[in-house]
Amino acid sequence: MFEEKLKEFESIFYPKSIAVVGASTNEKRVGSQWVKGLISAGFQGSVYPIGSGGGTISGLKIFPNLKFVPGEIDYVVVCVPRQSVLELLDDCIAKKVKAVQFFTAGFSETGKPEGRELEEQMVRKAGQGGIRIIGPNCAGIYCPENKISCGPSSEGRIGISGSVGFVSQSGGIACKLMEIGIARCINYSKGISFGNGIDLDASDFLQYLAIDPKTTIIGAYLEGARDGRRLFETMKEVTKIKPLVVWKGGRTETGAQAAMSHTGSLASSAFVWSAMLKQVGALEVHSLEELTDTLLIFQQLRFWQGDNVAIIGGLADGGGGISVSASDACVESGLKLPPLSKKAQRELTSLLGEVGSILHNPIDVSPAQFQGFPALFRAIELVVQDPVIELVLIQEDIDIILSYWAEAEKINDFLIDLRSKQNKPLVVVLPPGSAEPERLNIEQKLLKASIPAFPTMERAAKAIVAINKYFSSRQTMPSNNLNSLG
Amino acid sequence: MFEEKLKEFESIFYPKSIAVVGASTNEKRVGSQWVKGLISAGFQGSVYPIGSGGGTISGLKIFPNLKFVPGEIDYVVVCVPRQSVLELLDDCIAKKVKAVQFFTAGFSETGKPEGRELEEQMVRKAGQGGIRIIGPNCAGIYCPENKISCGPSSEGRIGISGSVGFVSQSGGIACKLMEIGIARCINYSKGISFGNGIDLDASDFLQYLAIDPKTTIIGAYLEGARDGRRLFETMKEVTKIKPLVVWKGGRTETGAQAAMSHTGSLASSAFVWSAMLKQVGALEVHSLEELTDTLLIFQQLRFWQGDNVAIIGGLADGGGGISVSASDACVESGLKLPPLSKKAQRELTSLLGEVGSILHNPIDVSPAQFQGFPALFRAIELVVQDPVIELVLIQEDIDIILSYWAEAEKINDFLIDLRSKQNKPLVVVLPPGSAEPERLNIEQKLLKASIPAFPTMERAAKAIVAINKYFSSRQTMPSNNLNSLG
Repeated sequence: MFEEKLKEFESIFYPKSIAVVGASTNEKRVGSQWVKGLISAGFQGSVYPIGSGGGTISGLKIFPNLKFVPGEIDYVVVCVPRQSVLELLDDCIAKKVKAVQFFTAGFSETGKPEGRELEEQMVRKAGQGGIRIIGPNCAGIYCPENKISCGPSSEGRIGISGSVGFVSQSGGIACKLMEIGIARCINYSKGISFGNGIDLDASDFLQYLAIDPKTTIIGAYLEGARDGRRLFETMKEVTKIKPLVVWKGGRTETGAQAAMSHTGSLASSAFVWSAMLKQVGALEVHSLEELTDTLLIFQQLRFWQGDNVAIIGGLADGGGGISVSASDACVESGLKLPPLSKKAQRELTSLLGEVGSILHNPIDVSPAQFQGFPALFRAIELVVQDPVIELVLIQEDIDIILSYWAEAEKINDFLIDLRSKQNKPLVVVLPPGSAEPERLNIEQKLLKASIPAFPTMERAAKAIVAINKYFSSRQTMPSNNLNSLG
Repeated sequence: MFEEKLKEFESIFYPKSIAVVGASTNEKRVGSQWVKGLISAGFQGSVYPIGSGGGTISGLKIFPNLKFVPGEIDYVVVCVPRQSVLELLDDCIAKKVKAVQFFTAGFSETGKPEGRELEEQMVRKAGQGGIRIIGPNCAGIYCPENKISCGPSSEGRIGISGSVGFVSQSGGIACKLMEIGIARCINYSKGISFGNGIDLDASDFLQYLAIDPKTTIIGAYLEGARDGRRLFETMKEVTKIKPLVVWKGGRTETGAQAAMSHTGSLASSAFVWSAMLKQVGALEVHSLEELTDTLLIFQQLRFWQGDNVAIIGGLADGGGGISVSASDACVESGLKLPPLSKKAQRELTSLLGEVGSILHNPIDVSPAQFQGFPALFRAIELVVQDPVIELVLIQEDIDIILSYWAEAEKINDFLIDLRSKQNKPLVVVLPPGSAEPERLNIEQKLLKASIPAFPTMERAAKAIVAINKYFSSRQTMPSNNLNSLG
């Protein structure tokens, strides 16, 4: 199912031409920023700025109205006040536009009847004219492959094209997902912020991402659903195809009130949502951090599953307390730290000696500091090769490593090389300290080499467990239904 | 009580002279690093390197033995193998040394009877000779005021001298606490890593910090206690004087096994510890992150208490989803987001208008982007001045702010100025994104101006709630006792 969405949404994610209504020679206006953003991002199709004032922006002629644009227009971005949206829809219909995205706000989210009425008129008009609406009150589409940045920013920021899809009711959170993606190498296939979702909403975009061949995992930030039954049925189908991770905003009463003013969503109780997400086999997360951590680990580890992890600490000194607290973090999250096999234990002992080191699991390799890199690397290899272990967590404390090892970058070069030579996942924990620029460089290097990196053991463990939780819940999914999703 | 500790520990935290045993002309040896670290840090007393090889290190003559040192020695740092520690203690006694810190490891934490026996002999000898022992297997003292860095690092890193004290069974975590302190402006009075704690242990140092006039709040990382009854009684007294925040390592069985190999601690169950900490009125935390967040907020907010907070978001655009999720994070942590007073609501509405903005609480000030800084600053001021509100949380999304505002630094200059002009606490949330260097600069600037900054709303809310929790638990402390602390 959902296959028809692929063709239908072609002009949304791969438009050949985009018109931006609300552009002007004033570069600070939102519409102008949007035009500049498309150009900076490197969008290869035609860009048509539309604005009543004439002139040019980014070297492009500003047309006074859509109908004066010479070529076809697939997709329109609207940044003009709500008073003119109906007239604008008429122009779009006349021009045979396929989809219109409204950045414009001031509709049902104001809580006033005029806002909701206007939305109803828009939906009716668009439906009659064969046009799909994205928004209003939204940041629209993000498609790195097609060089479309998220929201109105003249920089036109774009990450690497990848396999993670997202839908977000909030434009701010969509832009934040994009930025965190760029920073942490969470590489998106497509992202959508749909705001009030009066026509196309979460269900439509989830259906699209489920069938989109570029997408392997889907994240969602949702505040509410206009048609809860449809969202429920959609999610049930989506999770049969791809992992779905959902962060529900407006779980508390205060948060729900804010959601009402934000996207006009009637958020129902957190309890109903949690039950629904469990029932459809989606994974629920509770913060931006948890959502991005989970997307990162799914992106990197794909269909890996396992409980039995090893922790390696003390890459320079100071492995003791870290080993203790890392054990707590892993075990409390639900991971297991089995003893290494006898063979690995024997080899590690003969390599590092016994005194002052912890060779059970966690493995404190700090004695290697007195022997140099070959001993350190061999110790890590022995742990990674141990068949008892399904995933290896490596705690790198940059502050200490930099003060102990000359050429500390060799440690990460070794890990990257080791990762490329075998299939067992390596996950690195890089806690912040006082060498942040160095730490962020190392994080980038590891992430680009498919080694997920996290700032704390707690977050790494939680993300790893999320994968296990996801796949185990797939086998025990209940078949009864729920009624109200608000 | 505890007053006698002040005088007794004078030579530990404010020694006039320090000898480092295990130094050599080889700059890579731990003892040599320790000497270099003291010099780099700017320690003003005498430093005496001791090592059998002779020569000089950092321009200082290396004496073959303590007894050849011309002047008095208050404090000795030991980095030689365990085989020579008893002989060394004889030398210390002969030289009338007051305290000896053993970086040397290989004692009870190995789990072997020889290790424990050696420790017993050390304690006996030191007791007879009137010497106090710190460690073994520890990184020793951190005292920014007296320019003593933590652990053996030739850099001799030192933060600003402040009011936060810490004790840590682990040297690695002590060094990490120091580094995070430098990075996040958690300014320490004193820190102590005491390792196996065979003579002076957590109780002694907690007693000292409780009475130390420079210390106003105490953090602790503990794995176990040799004398649980004494620790219990000590904590009960300490919390009458100063807030005490405790992170217990080795809560899980695996973590406890690691703790056994790390500091020889018999860690008893997490449940017993939690009950004990509650009973003595200490605040329990569960990670390095939570410990440092809590110390930071206590340092900055001191005796502030309150539930009623306001959230300000949308300093550029994108305030909607952030407002929703920030509400959830605060309310789920236990904070309240009361509606602003009618007066503040009226003034905000007349300033920012109604459309698209959320003016209840959270307050989405994004409409100010169209009006410039005066409107933005006035909106923030209105919220801060509202008598209903006891603390103001400001969500700054650097990625978005930088793309919207020229001279974005004016926003933080304004906040710093506003903070200095009135007493209501401001707390800033600065989520990571793709402008990390800028973000870290802003964080530093805010922290130095006594505005606590956190990377997520969840962490900020949790820290704020910790203060409330601490002070409310002080009023309902039970008087019955517990037996086993392991």
